[in-house]
Amino acid sequence: MPTDALSWIAVDWGTSRLRVWPMDADDRPLELIESDKGMSRLTPDAFEPTLLDLLGNRLPDTTVPVMICGMAGARQGWAEAPYAAVPCEPPVRGIRPPVQDARLSVQILPGVQQDRPADVMRGEETQIAGFLVQEPRFDGVLCLPGTHTKWAHISAREIVSFRTFMTGELFALLSSQSVLRHTMTEDGWDAEVFASAVSDSLSRPAGLAASLFTLRADALLHGTGSAASRARLSGLLIGAELAAARPYWLGQEVVILGEDALATAYATALEPQGVQPRLLPAGDITLAGLTAAYHQMKDPT
Amino acid sequence: MPTDALSWIAVDWGTSRLRVWPMDADDRPLELIESDKGMSRLTPDAFEPTLLDLLGNRLPDTTVPVMICGMAGARQGWAEAPYAAVPCEPPVRGIRPPVQDARLSVQILPGVQQDRPADVMRGEETQIAGFLVQEPRFDGVLCLPGTHTKWAHISAREIVSFRTFMTGELFALLSSQSVLRHTMTEDGWDAEVFASAVSDSLSRPAGLAASLFTLRADALLHGTGSAASRARLSGLLIGAELAAARPYWLGQEVVILGEDALATAYATALEPQGVQPRLLPAGDITLAGLTAAYHQMKDPT
Repeated sequence: MPTDALSWIAVDWGTSRLRVWPMDADDRPLELIESDKGMSRLTPDAFEPTLLDLLGNRLPDTTVPVMICGMAGARQGWAEAPYAAVPCEPPVRGIRPPVQDARLSVQILPGVQQDRPADVMRGEETQIAGFLVQEPRFDGVLCLPGTHTKWAHISAREIVSFRTFMTGELFALLSSQSVLRHTMTEDGWDAEVFASAVSDSLSRPAGLAASLFTLRADALLHGTGSAASRARLSGLLIGAELAAARPYWLGQEVVILGEDALATAYATALEPQGVQPRLLPAGDITLAGLTAAYHQMKDPT
Repeated sequence: MPTDALSWIAVDWGTSRLRVWPMDADDRPLELIESDKGMSRLTPDAFEPTLLDLLGNRLPDTTVPVMICGMAGARQGWAEAPYAAVPCEPPVRGIRPPVQDARLSVQILPGVQQDRPADVMRGEETQIAGFLVQEPRFDGVLCLPGTHTKWAHISAREIVSFRTFMTGELFALLSSQSVLRHTMTEDGWDAEVFASAVSDSLSRPAGLAASLFTLRADALLHGTGSAASRARLSGLLIGAELAAARPYWLGQEVVILGEDALATAYATALEPQGVQPRLLPAGDITLAGLTAAYHQMKDPT
């Protein structure tokens, strides 16, 4: 088989987005196909046609392995892939959803659950698997910033425990849909205001409830601008998250997956607390996790 | 003048709603006219036509006093009525916006501001004025539950200090627009879950950030239903508010303006903390405040 021929397919099927990588026999992506046909827009029987449609005439006549992670395995997804329970390694064996087209041999990787405190992930476990390909001996805490930021304690290749914070979603709702949107009509950032807001929330987490409307009143009475308001809201929310996530970073080796503004904000927030987090490019980490699962399937050890 | 003739007009002009009471000479409302033409839907020059339109042919040919409270006096309203600053009595003297129709003699009452911590109210000061008509010697704390709940310390007829909490808006955003909406598809309430969530937030306010996504995971993993999820979200948020508002209720005489489900929820949350709040019907309290201001204007003492 020539190495530029399609050998298998990696898929990251999230709630709102879908990424498909046709892969060659040397595990190199031939291209990246992106779509907004996320799980939330599809009924279970629409997943296979969506995938076939995106692949177009790329499929050969033989059977091609397809390795999927993310919300395709949710109850409302293509087919439910029951969660693995912590402590556990990131799952490498998927479930096989019903498929009509004989050219597709599909596996959907399960997410991970934690019983108490109740928590779930679908997709992040594959990012963690990808990270562990790079750093198999890592013992510490991974922070995966996003709409729902995850903190995971990793030891001996296992996810020991984890917590999810809706900080990103709260920020988006408050800054674009609440009364605070009037104070954040422009972009911009004030690093000093951010740092002091983080510190306020960390030292007095009970103050958060009172601090939110203060942002609005400060803009009305004292002319606080968009950049300062935005940075303060972010700092208050990330500070509240750090206060609740303290066991995940205090005295720990912390790696933050990502290099964007959000990842940098977490790093900036942690540093005055005596934590020196490492920022790691998250770019192809999901693909590395899917690749590891594909090889585990092909050559189980 | 016959007592059923229009003598003056009381108006509560909020952000999203508008209530107009044509009043007789004995300060009895002849009727209540309601509209959704709140401040947020109007440009400054649209206020007068809106009012004239709602009043229709009720206006006599003489000049009629119109006493307005609320967001009509905001910067984006009919005309800006600069805030009075605490400590102060609820303002009784309004500003006079530009008016075309000679039959209208309009006053818009100012809101109240607090410099540090920055806070503002527009409309609630008139509810407080109405409450003080009933209880002029009140010395304690008023709680005005709503989208933005206000706590106000009242002494010697003055608003001494106050704080605003966005708890109601947060609950609405989280329960209808965030990922938590999936766990709250039905109505219902679980009083026991509410009480325990209030207690959780009060004793560990830092836990709130972590507790939100737990609601989603609990529904997925343990089948927690809508009623329990809804009551827990409300309890967590109100508990966080109470933790931050502690100086406003600890050891204080507390009166809650309102008798609806939200007012009752605040009372239920406070009782285990050793506070016995009084619930007071809020029905016409704004009208009582507008009436007091109207008489102050007519017969200044």
